[in-house]
Formats: sequence, C-alpha cells, structure tokens
Amino acid sequence: MQSREMQLVRRPSGLPREDDFRLVERKLGPCPPGLVRVRNRFISVDPYMRGRMTSPANPFALNEAVPGRTIGEVVESGDRRLRPGDLVRSMSGWREAFDAPAAALEYLDPRSLPPQAYLGVAGVSGLSAYAGLVRVAQLKQGETLFVSAASGAVGMVACQVARILGARVVGSAGGPEKCAFLREIGVDAVIDYKAEPDLDAALARAAPAGIDVYFDNVGGAHLEAAIAALRPFGRVAICGMISIYNEAALPPGPANLVTIVGKSARIEGFLAATHMDLMPEFIRNMEAWIGSGAVRYRDTIHDGIEALPRAFISLFTGANFGKPLVRIP
Amino acid sequence: MQSREMQLVRRPSGLPREDDFRLVERKLGPCPPGLVRVRNRFISVDPYMRGRMTSPANPFALNEAVPGRTIGEVVESGDRRLRPGDLVRSMSGWREAFDAPAAALEYLDPRSLPPQAYLGVAGVSGLSAYAGLVRVAQLKQGETLFVSAASGAVGMVACQVARILGARVVGSAGGPEKCAFLREIGVDAVIDYKAEPDLDAALARAAPAGIDVYFDNVGGAHLEAAIAALRPFGRVAICGMISIYNEAALPPGPANLVTIVGKSARIEGFLAATHMDLMPEFIRNMEAWIGSGAVRYRDTIHDGIEALPRAFISLFTGANFGKPLVRIP
Repeated sequence: MQSREMQLVRRPSGLPREDDFRLVERKLGPCPPGLVRVRNRFISVDPYMRGRMTSPANPFALNEAVPGRTIGEVVESGDRRLRPGDLVRSMSGWREAFDAPAAALEYLDPRSLPPQAYLGVAGVSGLSAYAGLVRVAQLKQGETLFVSAASGAVGMVACQVARILGARVVGSAGGPEKCAFLREIGVDAVIDYKAEPDLDAALARAAPAGIDVYFDNVGGAHLEAAIAALRPFGRVAICGMISIYNEAALPPGPANLVTIVGKSARIEGFLAATHMDLMPEFIRNMEAWIGSGAVRYRDTIHDGIEALPRAFISLFTGANFGKPLVRIP
Repeated sequence: MQSREMQLVRRPSGLPREDDFRLVERKLGPCPPGLVRVRNRFISVDPYMRGRMTSPANPFALNEAVPGRTIGEVVESGDRRLRPGDLVRSMSGWREAFDAPAAALEYLDPRSLPPQAYLGVAGVSGLSAYAGLVRVAQLKQGETLFVSAASGAVGMVACQVARILGARVVGSAGGPEKCAFLREIGVDAVIDYKAEPDLDAALARAAPAGIDVYFDNVGGAHLEAAIAALRPFGRVAICGMISIYNEAALPPGPANLVTIVGKSARIEGFLAATHMDLMPEFIRNMEAWIGSGAVRYRDTIHDGIEALPRAFISLFTGANFGKPLVRIP
C-alpha cells in the first residue's frame, strides 16, 4: 500500500514557502500484528506549527512528516478495540495512511457532527477558545470581551462561546466578508482592522467603557490596543500571536505593558495541551450548541495531500475563513 | 499653630526636580470639635507617586500637599477613641501637622517595632512584597524566585519572605554595597546589574534551570531577561517598573512576550491597595519574623520636611538603601 507524506525539508525563513516542504512516497507493508492501520481523511494545519518549525527548544524534525492532528478511518485492525470503519483522531501528522497502536488513537463514537468538525470547532481549535475564556481569562456574564482574528478557527468559537456565557463581544477581522460573518454569528461590535487607520480609536468606539477580557490570536498592534482598553482587573488570554510568527527578529513588545500595574491586570499565555481535561465537557457542550444553532462555524477545505503547504501558508496571509483543513480523498 | 506642607507645583518632565515642589506655610486654627490633631513624625516617599504626578487618568492635584502615607502622633483629640500620644498611620500627605476625623486614622497600638517600620518593612512597602509573592505569584516551596531592586524597600522584604516560604532567591541590585547586604540577608545568588554586561547570561548563571517567579520592581531589561528565564507555568508579579517612570515616551515592551504562550506563563500587575485585607496577618508575621531575626531591614532617613523632594528624587537615582523616609522633628 502506498502512503504519501508531506515532510519539512527546510526551516522557513519568514513566511513559509511551498518548497520548504516535500511530498515523499512511502510503502506500507502488511499491517504489523497488534497495530491498527488508519487512512487519514482530514488533516489540520495550525499556526502553532510555524513556531515549532524554527523553535530552538523544541523543533520539528527535518525530512520527516510534519506532526499534527488528523481524523482518519480505520482500514485494518489488529486490536479488538477498533474495527474497520471506525473514526479516530490522532497526532499522526501530514500523511495519507499510517499504522499505530490503538492507545495512540482516540476513538470518536458516531456523533452528530461531520468528522472534520472534531479537528476545528469541536476539536483542539475550539477547545483553545473554550479553555482560554473559561479557565484562563475566567470570563464572566456581563463582561466585555475583545477577540482578534475573530473569524478564524479559534476566534469564531471564542466569540460565540462568550455570547453564550453572557458577555458582550467585540470582534476584529480583516475585510468586509469576514466582518459580515461576525455580524451573522452575533458579535455585538465588529472592527475591520484593515479599514481602520487607528485601532485604539476603533476599539474605544466599539467598547466605550473599555474591555474586561482580550482573547489574543495576533499580538502586535491588537495587543497594544487591547491593553490600552483594559479595565481594572482585566485579563488577556494569549492563544497566539500570528502577526509575529514569520518575523525574522521579534518585534518590540507593547510599550504600554506598564499600565497593567495600575489596572491590576493580568496577561497569560496558554496552550490547549494543558487543558485537555476539558475536552469531554467541551465536546458535549459544542455538540449541543451547534445542534441548537447557538454556535455556527465555517471551514476552508483544501483538497489532497499536495495542498498541505498551501493550506498552511494561507494561515498567515488572511486567505482563510474559519478552520483550514486538508481533505484526503 | 504653624504647619508646613510640600506641594506639587509643576508636573515633572523626566526625572523630578526640586523646583517641581514648593514648601508652603499653613496656619492651623484651634482643632475643630470632633476632629483629631496629628503631628506627623515620618513621611513615606514611594515610586508610585511619580506616576500619579503625571497620570492622565488620576493625577495628583497641583498646588496641594502631595498625598502619601505618614506615621504621626496625636497631639489633641476631640474623639474619645484617640488620645494625645497615640501613634496613627494615615494618608495625610506631605504635611507637618493636620486635623482629621478619627475614622481616617489607623491606630497603631504600642508594638514591638519602631514607628517608622510601619511605613516600610511592616507597612505598605512590605505588604506589597508579601501580597505579590503569596497572592499574586503564589510562590511555592522549592521554587526559584528572581527579584529586581532587591535591596529596595519592597525588594528586601520579597527576598526574605520568599526564603521563609522555602524558595531559592536570586536578587539583583546595583553596586557592591547593596549586593553585600543581599548576601547578608540570605539571598542565594546575587547579581550586580551595574557590573554585568549581559543580564540574561548573569541570570542563566544564577538560575541555570530557570526561574518560576519574577518579582518585578524595575521593568525594562530586567523584565525581558526574566521572561527569557521563566520556566513553564512561570509567573511574573509586577509591582512597579521604576526604570521607565521618568521616560518622556514609554519605551518598547519586552520583545520576548510571545514566549509566555509556549510556557503557559502569566504576567500580572498589582497594587497593594487591592490586598489591604492581608495587612493584619502580614503585620503579625512581620513582627514575629523581625523579632526572630528571620527578616532584617534598612531605612534611609532624611531629616525635615524640606528634604521631601530630595528623598523622593533619590528613589530614581539608586541613592537609597531600603526604605527612604522623611523624619519630621
């Protein structure tokens, strides 16, 4: 059986390029006894991967398949816990097919959402939004939340979960189409940052009394504007800073950081990995919320394993809407 | 009765100057019925006052006595709860004497420490250290703490309370005399930042496995080095950023702020005012710790109300050792 995989062959400098990656053919022999053979159906591309590609501390290996989350279907099983046709989530990476022990595969019993939702809105992207609001920022009813990259895979969930929690939501996105979507999903005030010469002024208009929580996906000018708008005892949950992942040198941090002293404010970074214990509660909630229409979502589907580099690069160019996924035929 | 007061007459630009202040004579008539007349004996000068002098949101008034904490002695009382000779702590500001309702005066029953200690080591300076470690950073036994301005009024308490809590302490101060004092009070590793060309390297030598908590009094390069050295789930408690209070424009923030995401780290500003409920517990502990020799402290005493501007300015030039106080004869 043939299985192609997409390898990282060069550490990106700045915005990743398609030739930082290489598609390699692998032959899978017979499935070894006791293992399970899986065909991936959807592969996730995520902003955090950019950091790992050039991380001094914890880098992805070169000339190996890029690690990452996938949804796949069992095609052969040497373990009685899984059967052909079963859907599994795993960290199998950018490959068409693979063999793994059942313990490395998370069985998804037949559920109400399409399989790819468990990589996005009901997957780790959505969990990031949920954990960031509920556990890190501890968003409360009646508070005002500001979300950047609000139409992205994480941001759109943050906006809608915050509304369910009873918060007022200000969302920022780039361009009229994304902003229209934010209005559709109930965001109270929408900022098109590409059309705004002054983000501080735009945020002051959108939240005249300031904000209690900022959910940061982008860093840079958004973070600085959010710190300026923070109310006393405000919280910033930093999920990511996509604006700087491709910078050759780290740009300066927010000059107004000192103002968090007088406001008794808090800035906290977090990783979804720390909050995996919330996953069962999160999935239950999300299935109910999507079922009732309280949460809506969008994916951007790219087709074929060849599309992985392009889908990944699109994360940084604003070309995506919602969660970008690669579908394996 | 004459009472002189030190007024702010011009908002400082950069480092405050003595002529930003003016000494004004006031006549106090007979003490009004029901009020209490107090002669101040010690007046506190604190870094946070610099911010309030030019704060857009919450500025000190011009041509009035600078607000601030004092220890005074009751000289006349129209309230049966206080008697001449009683020691009181209050926010009476930079004045020799004043009349106030008893409710604005905190009675200090005869205690084990000299009166001025209740403005410094056992006052709000010390409480800032205590609250920052115990409540904000939640420092735990066995963790490593880094403290900047470690020989200052707040820093020296932070170092010693952290040792009592069972933490390993790295302290930074400027010059051999201050560093010698840090060694005397049991700081495990001392950094003379004025003699160190590379603060990151010095901190890496002092804490090879990184730090769990940074208690920030200075901001700037110290904050950036501390963020670089933070371990996963590290905390930064920001008490102040004295390095930037006199800057005309806010300098850039730490470029490595983004690294708190991967470390799940937290940066939190705080004000002692939020944690005044800890004061009774704090004073009890501090009296016991000073009594047993577990905590030692130093003051820098300036004499006479005329010395207030000079004492205040000395906060920013590194000329002080421990808590600077002005004694009123």
